[in-house]
Amino acid sequence: MEIDQIKEIMNTENLINNINKKKSFLCVGLDTDINKIPQHFLEYENPVLEFNKSIIDTTSDLTVAYKLNTAFYESDGVRGWENLQKTLEYIPKDIFVIADAKRGDIGNTSEMYAKAFFEKMDFDAITVAPYMGSDSVKPFMKYKNKWIILLALTSNEGAYDFQFLKVDDNNKLFEKVLTVSKEWGDDGNMMYVVGATKAENLTDIRKIVPEHFLLIPGVGSQGGSLQDVIKYGKNKSCGLLVNSSRAIIYAGKDKNFAERVREETEKVQKEMSMYL
Amino acid sequence: MEIDQIKEIMNTENLINNINKKKSFLCVGLDTDINKIPQHFLEYENPVLEFNKSIIDTTSDLTVAYKLNTAFYESDGVRGWENLQKTLEYIPKDIFVIADAKRGDIGNTSEMYAKAFFEKMDFDAITVAPYMGSDSVKPFMKYKNKWIILLALTSNEGAYDFQFLKVDDNNKLFEKVLTVSKEWGDDGNMMYVVGATKAENLTDIRKIVPEHFLLIPGVGSQGGSLQDVIKYGKNKSCGLLVNSSRAIIYAGKDKNFAERVREETEKVQKEMSMYL
Repeated sequence: MEIDQIKEIMNTENLINNINKKKSFLCVGLDTDINKIPQHFLEYENPVLEFNKSIIDTTSDLTVAYKLNTAFYESDGVRGWENLQKTLEYIPKDIFVIADAKRGDIGNTSEMYAKAFFEKMDFDAITVAPYMGSDSVKPFMKYKNKWIILLALTSNEGAYDFQFLKVDDNNKLFEKVLTVSKEWGDDGNMMYVVGATKAENLTDIRKIVPEHFLLIPGVGSQGGSLQDVIKYGKNKSCGLLVNSSRAIIYAGKDKNFAERVREETEKVQKEMSMYL
Repeated sequence: MEIDQIKEIMNTENLINNINKKKSFLCVGLDTDINKIPQHFLEYENPVLEFNKSIIDTTSDLTVAYKLNTAFYESDGVRGWENLQKTLEYIPKDIFVIADAKRGDIGNTSEMYAKAFFEKMDFDAITVAPYMGSDSVKPFMKYKNKWIILLALTSNEGAYDFQFLKVDDNNKLFEKVLTVSKEWGDDGNMMYVVGATKAENLTDIRKIVPEHFLLIPGVGSQGGSLQDVIKYGKNKSCGLLVNSSRAIIYAGKDKNFAERVREETEKVQKEMSMYL
């Protein structure tokens, strides 16, 4: 094994170092849909994997993280699960890789999910849903230098169904989720998902979790503003991973798609670099 | 294809017919952990699949449903995902099969999960987490004669972290989840997860969803009482699928394990038959 193939330890220090080195806190979401990739990839035996490799080759010097949305791989069955693994293996070892899996179940089951994503595969982090409470989350914390990223306030319209409900002590549910769950771990093994489409809530969120990293989806296709996210969400060591999926990976349609992808990625990275 | 291999349409009517025919509302949970199955299965090339086939052969005349917990399969990577598919395919076509996957994400992603479990695989139902709201749930409802089973009140200790919080109109969060979500579908495409360990709440739950089927985990290893579940949860057409996983599938340890599994399954089915 060559030295550069050894996975970098993904603790807070190294993550912050990478952000400062690359002047970027961009996470690219590999939500790869075979119906949306440039036509010419369909000539390959494995279009999704070839497309992912191209995206990684085109963007990896500008990004500090990739997020693989498990749904897009599971929809292709066994081959999809293989592509999830192969894509993960292709990503340079100094990049933080998130399984966007939204898992969470009773203790003995969450242990199995942790095994799937942290042992069988070597993801650095997994997104977890909070509804089932502490024992559904804690099994993921038994792994050193691995992270759980708990859903707090999501970027979608359905977030308004439950997440903004006022709970007993007059906080909103997503605030209660932050307050309660931050005691389960610390800012060295937990992050939170906060949708960029709800950036105005970041000020209140930062009062509860000033030091934690936040994974921010919703910039790009979902319409969230990067400027607002930085204004309300950035802390002294950055504390942000901002994800863009569709706006970057589907930026180009034809054989020259990689140039469009590169342009789009550079645009976002340049904007980020001004704040670091 | 032989006629008996065609999948039965899993609408409410057929589900109730099966319950009455088998005098059972038992769901057996195939949470298969290679470290817990009888030793002699390790001699097979595919121990998990062989074990699952044995369990299905031993219990299928006494059960109306199987529940496959995706975590246990994902923990074995690609081979695990293959075993998930192969186990599903082995189950008799008149039995209701649940993907216990606890999925849920923004709309375009939940669409992909629906494709994974309802198109790529032919599950009848999938468990879904409610935190992300309506647009994370509705994509699963586009499939005729398929079901979503939404988490309402779970069987684990962590349920007390958020599910019992009093929300704005003085209901508890799990009651609010029921009240809001039942408008997204109807009792022909939605069920709810209610843990047997919290059977005392079934009376209040039945006031909100009198007609819906409830999937009840927590009987068996988790200590829930079948009698209480029936007393507080049964409605006029039964309305219950009671799951037992570990207490049944790991009832025996040696070569004669199937006899113990059969005894345990018959015991539960007999108790159920008295109430039908």
